[in-house]
Amino acid sequence: MKHIKKYINENENRFIDELLELLRIPSISADPFYKQDVLKCAELVATSIKRAGAENIEICKTSGYPIVYGEKIIDINLPTVLVYGHYDVQPADPLDLWESGPFEPVIRKTDIHPDGAIFARGACDDKGQFYMHVKAFELMMKTGTLPCNIKFMIEGEEEVGSENLVTFVKENKSRLKCDTILISDTGIIANDTPSITTGLKGLSYLEVEVTGPNRDLHSGLYGGAVANPINILCDMISKMKDDNNCITIPGFYDNVKDLSTEEREEMSKAPFSLDKYKEALDLSDVHGEMGYTTIERTGIRPTLDVNGIWGGYTGEGAKTVIPSKAYAKISMRLVPNQSDEEITKLFSDYFLEIAPRSVKVKVTPHHGGEPYASPTNIPAYIAARKAMETTYGKTPVPVKSGGSIPIVALFEKELEVKSILLGFGLDSDAIHSPNEHYGIFNYLKGIETIPYFFENFANAKK
Amino acid sequence: MKHIKKYINENENRFIDELLELLRIPSISADPFYKQDVLKCAELVATSIKRAGAENIEICKTSGYPIVYGEKIIDINLPTVLVYGHYDVQPADPLDLWESGPFEPVIRKTDIHPDGAIFARGACDDKGQFYMHVKAFELMMKTGTLPCNIKFMIEGEEEVGSENLVTFVKENKSRLKCDTILISDTGIIANDTPSITTGLKGLSYLEVEVTGPNRDLHSGLYGGAVANPINILCDMISKMKDDNNCITIPGFYDNVKDLSTEEREEMSKAPFSLDKYKEALDLSDVHGEMGYTTIERTGIRPTLDVNGIWGGYTGEGAKTVIPSKAYAKISMRLVPNQSDEEITKLFSDYFLEIAPRSVKVKVTPHHGGEPYASPTNIPAYIAARKAMETTYGKTPVPVKSGGSIPIVALFEKELEVKSILLGFGLDSDAIHSPNEHYGIFNYLKGIETIPYFFENFANAKK
Repeated sequence: MKHIKKYINENENRFIDELLELLRIPSISADPFYKQDVLKCAELVATSIKRAGAENIEICKTSGYPIVYGEKIIDINLPTVLVYGHYDVQPADPLDLWESGPFEPVIRKTDIHPDGAIFARGACDDKGQFYMHVKAFELMMKTGTLPCNIKFMIEGEEEVGSENLVTFVKENKSRLKCDTILISDTGIIANDTPSITTGLKGLSYLEVEVTGPNRDLHSGLYGGAVANPINILCDMISKMKDDNNCITIPGFYDNVKDLSTEEREEMSKAPFSLDKYKEALDLSDVHGEMGYTTIERTGIRPTLDVNGIWGGYTGEGAKTVIPSKAYAKISMRLVPNQSDEEITKLFSDYFLEIAPRSVKVKVTPHHGGEPYASPTNIPAYIAARKAMETTYGKTPVPVKSGGSIPIVALFEKELEVKSILLGFGLDSDAIHSPNEHYGIFNYLKGIETIPYFFENFANAKK
Repeated sequence: MKHIKKYINENENRFIDELLELLRIPSISADPFYKQDVLKCAELVATSIKRAGAENIEICKTSGYPIVYGEKIIDINLPTVLVYGHYDVQPADPLDLWESGPFEPVIRKTDIHPDGAIFARGACDDKGQFYMHVKAFELMMKTGTLPCNIKFMIEGEEEVGSENLVTFVKENKSRLKCDTILISDTGIIANDTPSITTGLKGLSYLEVEVTGPNRDLHSGLYGGAVANPINILCDMISKMKDDNNCITIPGFYDNVKDLSTEEREEMSKAPFSLDKYKEALDLSDVHGEMGYTTIERTGIRPTLDVNGIWGGYTGEGAKTVIPSKAYAKISMRLVPNQSDEEITKLFSDYFLEIAPRSVKVKVTPHHGGEPYASPTNIPAYIAARKAMETTYGKTPVPVKSGGSIPIVALFEKELEVKSILLGFGLDSDAIHSPNEHYGIFNYLKGIETIPYFFENFANAKK
């Protein structure tokens, strides 16, 4: 397979330039201000897939942002791989912490990326990663080595819950028929320690609003006599966990299966240094559920985090106000057997229950998703494992992630195939944070590994 | 004293127009963006005092915003009244809740103000109230009835802690020499129930910052394993009060004197309807320290309120982030014998003590002030009481307020005179809130009452 390295060497500058062009579009799906940019991004994705050699390109309308579809069917008797990815990105704030503009991609070297990394919102999540598939597909087309049929489905609402993709999948089952789904929207442990994600958490994301008095009040004249919605919201959030950092929502853990001692021992073999972890985040101590290690807390335990909170006066200086309202965005990550709909209901019930009579409370679910687990003994996983063995020279470690790609459980339910989570990012890539970046090494290694996956998968299915 | 009503009747439209002009200047001292406006406001205050007949006008420079001084000394053997007020205002946000622009004053009728009220930031607090003194002074000058010497000291930093006024008072003791200080920056119970404020709370105002990881993190990949500064901040705020809504900071209540049963009985005689209070604020229930009534909670008990909180993603939609930092502005209102410096230290110590090892905590004191109590048997109080008896036809109720005018305790310490808190606002005037307003009735009644105070005080001192 010498043609792979050769093609990449001859085209890598163009591969990078094309990705930079994609990263310049601020396709933030959460913020309506960027609507035209998100739509423009969909156009560019469609064009790039078409240029790489796909057919039947369609920018499929939805009630929200469109889904870009394209395919190359070389022989209906050959296996079909469906590539899923997303062209939308997270909001970029806080902007003042970015060293360069989030939508003005630049390449800088770092300790972890001596060959350079592309700094931009979406560099890793997920533009840089889905674009590897476009370029790997181009490589296979141009070198006449595409061994399977391929379908692309690149959506624009992953960061806001993929609601319209759900409808699209349900309505397009025959068009999306495939033998496996290949997704690069996760990471590896390190550039010398490849891994494949075998578990994803589910997600329940809600917004809560606590109303005290019907208007902002002077904290001197009313302080101590009326419910301050900020104090109450803090009390209520505090009541969500006990002193052992266990979540206190009644029924929350009911369907969580405890792993066996053997399974936990197996997990503990994954390379991990708590000291390095703390040092990288400048933490004096980690913080989590009593009785579990850091890897277990992120990998196999459900969690609850406040993702945003606001209320009252937040400007410069001092204002002595009791605000009328306080708000928080709260999300829970779920593990296999937990249903996001059920957990959303348990949360809402509990939140209303613990609200004192002196306030009014509103809970608005944002979006959710079921957890997902992938076996390691199926042909698609084995094809991915072998591909990484070829390009990294090492067997990838199977890893359960704390992250969520809610749509993956739905794919399994509706399309009845397993997804392979073959991601190439690093934890340090700062996705969802300022200075998100993606290593040039990782980008090119992904483009190199994907054709091996196709080859291995085609062979396994013969 | 028929000349008073006559002069007011002949000039009331001009009195109102002049106040509107003052209210059009957004003199927000907390926000440096409005610096030029605050300075412009000081100029207009100086001009207005001069036009009313004062001499030795000076816009006194400080390290912050200037203090406007002016005086009229008619006979050094007569008693001297020092009028204190402030020309700066609170920030106007949240702007979207204002029915008309906060700095575009308009007059609208309301149920409580059938004669109309002026809606603007500062209408009541304190432009509308200190300007009554300017107009009452003009009235006494133009009608040749000024019975005392008068000094004006109008500052521009009351809403941000009056720090530079402290220095000014200490350095200008002889210039500020007087027999009493007259301040209109408080309110009455209702337009048919006059009252005079006999107690003010002290204030300790701080900003806290909680830092978890050194950068914003993806809540899936790190959730449950690192300290989320928002969750921790909520826990810490929640720990500031117990289940009885008593403040848990060790030593907080040490110097608080409990009132005797008789004193509490006396307080309970003030006209107050809990049902109307709840209805006005749309509350199902009030909320405060166990064992005390609403009037006691605001009047005689120290309190703790979060005035603002922020952290993480607060935009539209959902972002799954664990922020690096979370912040809150927290203030405590203090009662006689509590020292703001001591309470600020107790708070800081406790806040640092309850912080888990997994976060870093920073506490920044903003500003403070001592509480104040005024006796009801001194000549100045009696002069104020009698003035209200004349203009309202009722004896005013002495009231302990939950509000703070930190400088009043300092006046007593440095100038060795008591202040009389002769305010004319209503609780419903929405000071520090959107749609702040001040009744035309109240404005004109204040201008009418003040000359009687001067007359009564001059007679008492003869």
